[in-house]
Amino acid sequence: MAESVQIREVGMRDGLQSIAEIMPTETKLAWLDAEYAAGVREIEVSSFVPPKLLPQLADAEAVVKHALTLPGLTVSALIPNSRGAERGLALGVHEMNFVLSVSEGHNLSNVRRSTEESVADFRRVVELCREQGGANRPRVNCGLATSFGCTIEGDVDEDRVRRIANEVAAAGADGIILADTVGYGNPAAIGRVFRRVIADIAPVPVAAHFHDTRGLGLANVLAAFAAGCKAFDASLGGLGGCPYAPGATGNIVLEDTVFMFESMGLETGIDLEKLAAAREIVHRALPEVMLYGAIAKAGLPRNFHPVAQAA
Amino acid sequence: MAESVQIREVGMRDGLQSIAEIMPTETKLAWLDAEYAAGVREIEVSSFVPPKLLPQLADAEAVVKHALTLPGLTVSALIPNSRGAERGLALGVHEMNFVLSVSEGHNLSNVRRSTEESVADFRRVVELCREQGGANRPRVNCGLATSFGCTIEGDVDEDRVRRIANEVAAAGADGIILADTVGYGNPAAIGRVFRRVIADIAPVPVAAHFHDTRGLGLANVLAAFAAGCKAFDASLGGLGGCPYAPGATGNIVLEDTVFMFESMGLETGIDLEKLAAAREIVHRALPEVMLYGAIAKAGLPRNFHPVAQAA
Repeated sequence: MAESVQIREVGMRDGLQSIAEIMPTETKLAWLDAEYAAGVREIEVSSFVPPKLLPQLADAEAVVKHALTLPGLTVSALIPNSRGAERGLALGVHEMNFVLSVSEGHNLSNVRRSTEESVADFRRVVELCREQGGANRPRVNCGLATSFGCTIEGDVDEDRVRRIANEVAAAGADGIILADTVGYGNPAAIGRVFRRVIADIAPVPVAAHFHDTRGLGLANVLAAFAAGCKAFDASLGGLGGCPYAPGATGNIVLEDTVFMFESMGLETGIDLEKLAAAREIVHRALPEVMLYGAIAKAGLPRNFHPVAQAA
Repeated sequence: MAESVQIREVGMRDGLQSIAEIMPTETKLAWLDAEYAAGVREIEVSSFVPPKLLPQLADAEAVVKHALTLPGLTVSALIPNSRGAERGLALGVHEMNFVLSVSEGHNLSNVRRSTEESVADFRRVVELCREQGGANRPRVNCGLATSFGCTIEGDVDEDRVRRIANEVAAAGADGIILADTVGYGNPAAIGRVFRRVIADIAPVPVAAHFHDTRGLGLANVLAAFAAGCKAFDASLGGLGGCPYAPGATGNIVLEDTVFMFESMGLETGIDLEKLAAAREIVHRALPEVMLYGAIAKAGLPRNFHPVAQAA
């Protein structure tokens, strides 16, 4: 049996949140259905931020409810705080992702509190879920933003990343997501940090959330994989970042990430030809938004053998 | 002292050869000078094909002569056959790169002879250089095109790549260049083949020539590096491939390749800010040609510390 990797679609949250033009709920559901049909089994479908702050994701409840009807789909959502966690608990999402920044300056700028205060907030979220979630409580992950550099502080100390990862693991995180929020990471740093954090907090899983701003996205994925990471965030067409600026690409491209792993003989469970239908839905709904992706442009090579078909 | 990697600019040959609009010789010389000023110390400056077949490179002699005036620059040129080797010998280039395709179908289509016949041609080129080159004879490398897949044949057998690499090494190659001519390679295959060929033909060096057609270019570079490869071809702005089709990117982007290695703490000797001047020269001369590169668009991150400055 082929080794497998998990790829989580985050475009409906991390991609859409930076796009001003509101995507109708029915389009989001069609996108969700198309990705599900292509074999995607983990999707971060929305964010439980206050709807007034982020009108694009004001339909979080409706999207989550639909996603929960798809058998075998792991439905996750971002939560900014305990209030968001309560919304997620009420709906019964499978996974909630809390985010804090390792860089003090980035955390202060984003949520007006120190990183340590955010770690304390995360601890309260975990406790809340344990108290209220019962036997079917959702998994609660913690994303560590700016783990590989910060637009405000520049360098981010690798020992600090490791220390905070250990703190959130001790706080009861079901998983940690090391995030290169601003596309500052390189394969050497990513290899080092993943290797150490994975060793420190095992068996708690460590996932990767990378942006492709400086072209190293897939090289960074490869480095994290070599260091033992088996779970990767990506977004259809690389949605995210600043969608109208050609240079500021967003998340790593879902299609290209699937292509890389499948071409290496690692099973993703995702069918690239079916994924094209999902891309078409997003392209029609947001014709002004640049969609990235080398496979979408160049097509699959003649020596490509998807793992599921080869098996 | 930091570990170093060698990066060879091939845009003046592999990039320009696919561009119909002829770049004036003085522009080529200005481009050469700008790259030299940025620290590039290996450049494939032209190809000794018959000028009638490739008017873009009809000024090979003039470009080579100028390149040979730059102290410390390794001047290389592509040679299609013994006739080309004679031109290179007469001019005194430092390195000549003969190319054959591992895929029989690709070789037949390109040069109307079998791969084995091309290996025999290469053997004659090596003998010619030994006879006529004297003590200062140029290095003669052999590029193995379609080593990771072929648009005509699809899969290319890895054992065949290895066998032909061994044959050209036995024929006296001073170096071998494993080429992913059509952007079909993936990090797993590249890791396997580089590791084996490097072990087989040591101490003959094995370089990498990759195209970024399907977005895996830098991941493939990383895989080859992990397998022991220390020398990489790249082109400014990713020139090459089919320059007018947005999807058909060419060689891996020189700037992004330098950025990846330098950010990993591996010394390239190349100054990215100075390289921007070379890019400007090419952009002005060929305004219709798409130049690629994430660093050119997004800029260097605040956590970037070039190796030479850090030392």
